[in-house]
This record gives sequence, structure tokens and C-alpha cells, in this order.
Amino acid sequence: MKELAIGIDLGGTNLKGCVMNRAGEILHLIRIPTEADKGGQRVLENILRLIGQLIQKQGAADSILGAGIGSPGFVDTDGTVLGGAENLPGWKGTRIYEPIREKHGLAATAGNDVTVTALAEFKFGAAKGMTNAVCLALGTGIGGGIVTNGHIYKGTHGMAGELGHICVETGGLQCTCGMKGCVEQYASATGIVKNAKLICDAVAENERTPFVDAVTTRPQSVTSKLVYDFVKKNDPIALRVHEYVCERLGRAVGAIFNTLAPDRLILGGGVMMAGQVIIDAVSRHSAKYCWPDIWKRCDIVAAQCGENAGVLGCGAMVFDEMG
Amino acid sequence: MKELAIGIDLGGTNLKGCVMNRAGEILHLIRIPTEADKGGQRVLENILRLIGQLIQKQGAADSILGAGIGSPGFVDTDGTVLGGAENLPGWKGTRIYEPIREKHGLAATAGNDVTVTALAEFKFGAAKGMTNAVCLALGTGIGGGIVTNGHIYKGTHGMAGELGHICVETGGLQCTCGMKGCVEQYASATGIVKNAKLICDAVAENERTPFVDAVTTRPQSVTSKLVYDFVKKNDPIALRVHEYVCERLGRAVGAIFNTLAPDRLILGGGVMMAGQVIIDAVSRHSAKYCWPDIWKRCDIVAAQCGENAGVLGCGAMVFDEMG
Repeated sequence: MKELAIGIDLGGTNLKGCVMNRAGEILHLIRIPTEADKGGQRVLENILRLIGQLIQKQGAADSILGAGIGSPGFVDTDGTVLGGAENLPGWKGTRIYEPIREKHGLAATAGNDVTVTALAEFKFGAAKGMTNAVCLALGTGIGGGIVTNGHIYKGTHGMAGELGHICVETGGLQCTCGMKGCVEQYASATGIVKNAKLICDAVAENERTPFVDAVTTRPQSVTSKLVYDFVKKNDPIALRVHEYVCERLGRAVGAIFNTLAPDRLILGGGVMMAGQVIIDAVSRHSAKYCWPDIWKRCDIVAAQCGENAGVLGCGAMVFDEMG
Repeated sequence: MKELAIGIDLGGTNLKGCVMNRAGEILHLIRIPTEADKGGQRVLENILRLIGQLIQKQGAADSILGAGIGSPGFVDTDGTVLGGAENLPGWKGTRIYEPIREKHGLAATAGNDVTVTALAEFKFGAAKGMTNAVCLALGTGIGGGIVTNGHIYKGTHGMAGELGHICVETGGLQCTCGMKGCVEQYASATGIVKNAKLICDAVAENERTPFVDAVTTRPQSVTSKLVYDFVKKNDPIALRVHEYVCERLGRAVGAIFNTLAPDRLILGGGVMMAGQVIIDAVSRHSAKYCWPDIWKRCDIVAAQCGENAGVLGCGAMVFDEMG
């Protein structure tokens, strides 16, 4: 049994690659620029170069079972990028598997970046020892990843886990995807900022707080971190924004719980720097949208794998799928 | 390899049992009364008796791998009924597996009745040859069943697939589960009737149609079949009810598609006697609530396994879980 795997985490800025073992220990870690602006072919060449560097560090490819790639958007089961990765121009249509096999003699597999993160948390982090897990990454957008019956779940054509586009408000805020009311428009970093501005703009003069002043005087510099800095200070309008966005996130979580009844829902991404206050509010609000027996049994917890979750999940996907 | 399985479909009125092979061929089929009113212990005794009769028909238990039970509500992974089966008083708390093993020497497994139906459709019916499938049973309520990566998906404590309780209308109609706006309150047989009455009651005098007359003069005899009889006649108010309930069902389907991206969503249950008109409307409406790339790739089809779907799914669960 080959004991090592290569994991490649494809980001808009950096390509991060590791050689890891089945226990999730990283033996080698290399980071190179993605050069996304130079097109999909260049990105692929950089992935191939990075795999080469990792094999060289390891000394030989003999003990490496395969290479796993985590990509934004969708990768079909045959290794063709189907789209959904707007920050990687020309990446759509790229065929990933053959070049890796031809150049390095390695079998390859790919998955959505949040899907592999869910697998990392399942194998090595917040859902270790469980059977079923769902991950929600609250970043610029909201991504999702699912593990069912102990295995990564990709869905047809690798498209499962678009949890950020669960509609939580019929006729709600316009989403970049073309639909309206997607949860991403409320509980992503971008969504929190957008709703903070909308709520602050609607505040009556006698309700103004330091948070409202901060948002309305410098609208360009509002971040989700700023919102949660004021939440910590118990600013009533910041708390109103917090409850508003977590209520909508709770709607999506209720639908996810009713559908999958996972052992654990893992919240990650930059927004989760705010920590337990989000978990508490989402847990409370999701109760209104979830069958009570299920809600009682599904935990909501914070991600644990940190910045290496991506590469760890990619390697874990190799072991999960190639044995 | 043992080539046969016993499947037991537990209904509020009848217990149906079969001996079947891996190809889904039913060798023996027996139906006895459930006697649900006589309590959970009697129901269990009847299940044991039915299994005995099936073994006797087969001649011996040697070639039988195990027994699978499909039950309304939730059955935990250890075979304890957790609840959710209101039409089976005293069934909650029953431990299913040990008595079957003790009395008949057979390993047992259990699952939600719609979950096993999804497996039947996946193995032998509308999703045969696929990898991932979701089933929605539109009956008195709405039940759900999920197959992921080619296997039955039960979720934590056997609770996955409560798709009828996905909230599709914030603050909407009160549901029996305690929540509001569950899709079951709109697109189940009961929900269709309820919304037909609400819509007909609100119709202006100059909008009255034969359908409105039928509903308002004999409200006690309205059924989902009556609604769809008038839909077939293009009655504009019946069509309004149809679009209204299918729009809300489309919201749930959109959330399910975004989450699971199944190859196929299978619609079954009594409401589906109306056929293609529901599939067309749900497909159209779900597009508003689903990432476009996913929507294009997920088919909505009618169930194919018919009245034996339950027992077939129970037997298939035995093969799926016991090998």
C-alpha cells in the first residue's frame, strides 16, 4: 500500500502543495504563485511544476499513491474544469488528469476547494471520528463541502455543495449567480458588509450608535471584522446586523440539517474569526427551520484544520478515492 | 455469498414482506395487518411472525443474508425507533434488531420508509445506473430519501431526508412539526388541499370558476386529485393553485439540488398520480432557486417501482449494508 499522497490547493494567488501521509502529517510543503492572470494553461503548467518539485523533495514517486487537486468551482469526474471559478480566467475547460499522468506518472483526482476542506476536517479536524459532516466556508462568498458515510461527496459532475446559493429570502438581494436571496448575500463577508450598510442607512437618527457612525462615514472601509468588533462591544445596531445575517444563515443551516442530518456542521472561513458568537446565533436561529429531533443531534462547531486544510483535504481525497 | 434478502415494509395499516434476490426479483410476497392500534409490541410481534412466514415459504433461512425493515419516522443505527411515526402509537422506543436475531437468527437493519424507497428506485427503477439520487414522496405528508456515492444515506441516528420540513416560506403556514412554512404544508396532498381552499376563499366573485364552486360548496371532499382533475381541464384557479404549490416545491428542490447535485430527483407518492404536469412545473420553478449549471444537469423524473418500492428497498438495504 502506497503511504503518501500529494495535495495541491489551487488559490487565486498561490498554489500550495504538500506531500503527506495517511495520518495527515505533512512531510513537505511548497508554495508558488498561481499566476492566474496568465491564463488556465499557465496555471496547469505551474501545477505540474509544483508536483515535480514535491516529487523531487520526496526523492522518488514510488510511494506516492496519486495527486489530489482542490480547485474553486466545479471539476467534472473526468477531470475537466466545468466553471464556477471566476478568479481563474481561462481555467474553465482545462483537463487536469491526463497531463499529471503523462508528466509524472501519477493518478490524479480533483474536487471543489471547500469539498476537500470538509474532508480534511472530517479526517483530521473538527469532525474526526464522525460518519457524516458538512462544511460551510464563510469567506468572500460561501462555499460548501459534504462528507457522507465516511467518504467525500462530490455529486453529479462534481457539483454538490453549492450551499452558498441556497435561497433564504424569496425575492431577496440580487446574487452574482443570477438568482435572488442566496444565503451568500447575507452571511458571507461581502454579504455582512452589504447588510450592515443597508441596516445602518435605515437607522433612525435617535438610534445612531458609534457603529452606525463608523459605517456611514467611511462606507468603503467596512469589513465583516469591523462589524464583529462592534458586536463585541455590544453596539445595538451591530448586534442587529449580526442577528439579521445569522438568522438567514440559520435558514440555510436548517435546510441542510433536514436534508443531511450530519453529525457535525463545521463553520470556517474568514468570517469565523468572530468565533463562538456566530455559532451560538446560527444554532439558535436554525432551530426555527429544522425538525427538532434532528436539530438536537447535529452540532455546529468551528473549523480546526487552519490554513493547511486545503492541501490536507486534497491528500485525503487521494486516499479516500484511490484506496 | 448469500443471494436472498427479506424486506419488510411497515405501514400504518399493512405489513408487507418479501423474499427477493439481488436483481430485485420478488420470490415470495406476504401481506398481514399491522395492528398499529394494538401498540408497538404487537407490531413487533407481527413483524417477527411475518419474517417466520417468509422463511417458511422459502423453505430455509440458509440463503437469506438478513432482514431489512422500512419504518415511518426515524430508526437509530442500533435499531431503536426514535420517533417520528405518529400513526404507530407505542412504536417509539422499540428495539428492532435483537428480537429478529434471537427469533430467526437473522441480522437486521432498518431505515426510514422513504429512504428505502429511494434505494429501490436507485437500484431497480427511475435512477438505475446512476450514482446519486434523491426521492421525494408527495403523500399525506412529504418524505425524503437520499442515495450518495451509490449507497443508502441515513445520516446521524438515521435522521437524514426530512425534506418535507425544508422551510420554503418564512413565517408561512403552521406545520404539525411545530415549525412554519415547511414545504409539506404546500405540496403534500394535505398541503395542496389546504392551499386550494385558501386560494378559492380569496377569489373575487367575478373570477369564480367551476373549480372554485366545487371547492367552496363541498370543502370536506376536496382532494389533491380533484385539484388536478380541474388542472387537466385548464381551470384558471386550479392552475393558480398548481403553480402556487409547485413554486414552493421548486424552492425546496432548488435547495436540494444546490446541496446534493444528484443525478436524478425522483418524485413519487399519491400526488404524482397527476404526472408530468407536476414535474414540468417543479422543474421550471426550481430553476429560480438553483445554481444554473447544477439545474441543467439534474433531472426530475417520476418514480417507477410502484407499490412494491418499499419491500424492494428494504431488501436492497440488506444487500447494500451487509454485502
